[in-house]
Amino acid sequence: MNALIFDGQLKLTRDYPMPRAPQGETRVRVLRAGICNTDLEIVKGYMGFRGVLGHEFVGIVDDDAHPEHPERSPERQPKEAESKGRRVVGEINASCGACPTCLRGDTTHCPNRTTLGIVSRAGALAEYLTLPTRNLHRVPDAVSDGQAVFTEPLAAACEITDRIHIRPTDRVCVIGDGKLGLLCAQVLQLTGCDLLTIGHHARKLAILEKRGIATTTDADAVRGQFDVVVDCAGNASGFDLARKLTRPRGTLVLKSTFHGGQESSFAPIVIDEISIIGSRCGPFASALRLLEQKLIDVDALTDSEFPIARGVEAFERAQQKGAMKVQVVMA
Amino acid sequence: MNALIFDGQLKLTRDYPMPRAPQGETRVRVLRAGICNTDLEIVKGYMGFRGVLGHEFVGIVDDDAHPEHPERSPERQPKEAESKGRRVVGEINASCGACPTCLRGDTTHCPNRTTLGIVSRAGALAEYLTLPTRNLHRVPDAVSDGQAVFTEPLAAACEITDRIHIRPTDRVCVIGDGKLGLLCAQVLQLTGCDLLTIGHHARKLAILEKRGIATTTDADAVRGQFDVVVDCAGNASGFDLARKLTRPRGTLVLKSTFHGGQESSFAPIVIDEISIIGSRCGPFASALRLLEQKLIDVDALTDSEFPIARGVEAFERAQQKGAMKVQVVMA
Repeated sequence: MNALIFDGQLKLTRDYPMPRAPQGETRVRVLRAGICNTDLEIVKGYMGFRGVLGHEFVGIVDDDAHPEHPERSPERQPKEAESKGRRVVGEINASCGACPTCLRGDTTHCPNRTTLGIVSRAGALAEYLTLPTRNLHRVPDAVSDGQAVFTEPLAAACEITDRIHIRPTDRVCVIGDGKLGLLCAQVLQLTGCDLLTIGHHARKLAILEKRGIATTTDADAVRGQFDVVVDCAGNASGFDLARKLTRPRGTLVLKSTFHGGQESSFAPIVIDEISIIGSRCGPFASALRLLEQKLIDVDALTDSEFPIARGVEAFERAQQKGAMKVQVVMA
Repeated sequence: MNALIFDGQLKLTRDYPMPRAPQGETRVRVLRAGICNTDLEIVKGYMGFRGVLGHEFVGIVDDDAHPEHPERSPERQPKEAESKGRRVVGEINASCGACPTCLRGDTTHCPNRTTLGIVSRAGALAEYLTLPTRNLHRVPDAVSDGQAVFTEPLAAACEITDRIHIRPTDRVCVIGDGKLGLLCAQVLQLTGCDLLTIGHHARKLAILEKRGIATTTDADAVRGQFDVVVDCAGNASGFDLARKLTRPRGTLVLKSTFHGGQESSFAPIVIDEISIIGSRCGPFASALRLLEQKLIDVDALTDSEFPIARGVEAFERAQQKGAMKVQVVMA
């Protein structure tokens, strides 16, 4: 099958072996997959991953489901997602379900996990993939294929409100107008909070302005501080700005994973008693509800589509400054 | 009066002007004052402070109280602390009581605050000081002068449990066996949690061992991770160890303020969804209760006493590796 792989270099392979679903997993025929900033970081060396890239996808259940892992909790059981022909998206962390971390409910942090296209598991930028059956979620009919590919990053945005309580009275700032920043701002708007997004691209910020979200490209002109600041800048400069804008005893949410370290003084965090909250993968069911109910605009975040045969070109487009979500279509 | 001042250099001044208490403040005759690591950092340039050093003290109310600031809330009103001759300790942040930060209850973060011996306010290493009357707390008779000087750092340790919920089922690690580390470990022990303290000095750790707290000097041999890690190391190396020992979705409490920055990668904080909580000054009333009820051993943390005339020598002793709490006696 066709697959986009990274083996130190990004390349299209036409004869990648078709995966077979092991016990507890299901094979999915991928319809389309998105290119995420994490994929671009991996191609730069982040996580040391080698193999099929990609973790944002929508697909069709290709084989009959295997028996489920007995330990999984009922509330995490995706309903109706197992039948052949169903359109599905999938949570990207494949957890053991048996270790203390899983049993505590923190399955996305299972130390034995593999992660689709990121850690020891072939990814979604291929014609077929496999995932634990319990990771799959049926896509509502009202959600298009192109929208469904946003489930994973939208779930990551929902992880903010899953981890901390945002009050409708909070003053909140999102730093960054990349894809993740635009999704986070839209999710945070739904809390009723007093929201400002700081970005670099008037064209991207216009997507938020159209929805009534205040934006600015002039960080220096922002007055006062915020109860909650969400750093989606995707680079080291975002953190210092975020810290400066967080009020004493306020909360700074870190969403960006980027390759490399940075120099920071920690004394101001102690003196201002700031809480820094790392936030990563989030709840798929919540993201699918928001998409189905048309509460989030992902169509405006779509950049371009490429067939898998032009996958390397798709990455080149995604790496261009100001590019929005690039999708790769398998058929 | 005698005062220990820092004007780029640490020195004893014999003719420092006696302070007069302005409206809302009370003059206190200092009995003794402690030397804190923050004082040692200030002498190295931290905070850019110039003036009388010191913020840990016990003293005697020297003049009759002035009328109180009308805005202060009743629950912050120290009872009976105003009368002349009362033995008192004092909260170190003098807040305006009128700004949005104060009105939110975050008075220790008032942007208009001065801080005893740290920010724009003459400190406690002198024969007299003044503080807002509402900052004063009466010292119970069962607490000795030497113990009362520990109220401020013990309150800082209590700030951990004031900011986050430590469960009796949590596995907790304190990094650092300096004075603050030893106080934090003792406060955390009282939650019933499963506690380990990592330090460098067997002699200091023995104070905790004697109280039944597990300790080690071998950080590499520590197995597993902790729900909560408290960094009291007082230097940059503590943070990386603390991060490594914090479980996914666990909490890292930063207690150390030290001069200078450090290089850190933030991606692991996002990936492991760690919460980092800055923690500084804490509740005096709680610390005084713990001291009165003999639940914390501060006597073992006392190093030596110097008369104010030998104050520079006291700083030299406090700067020596392994020194415990050095106190300066005024009389």
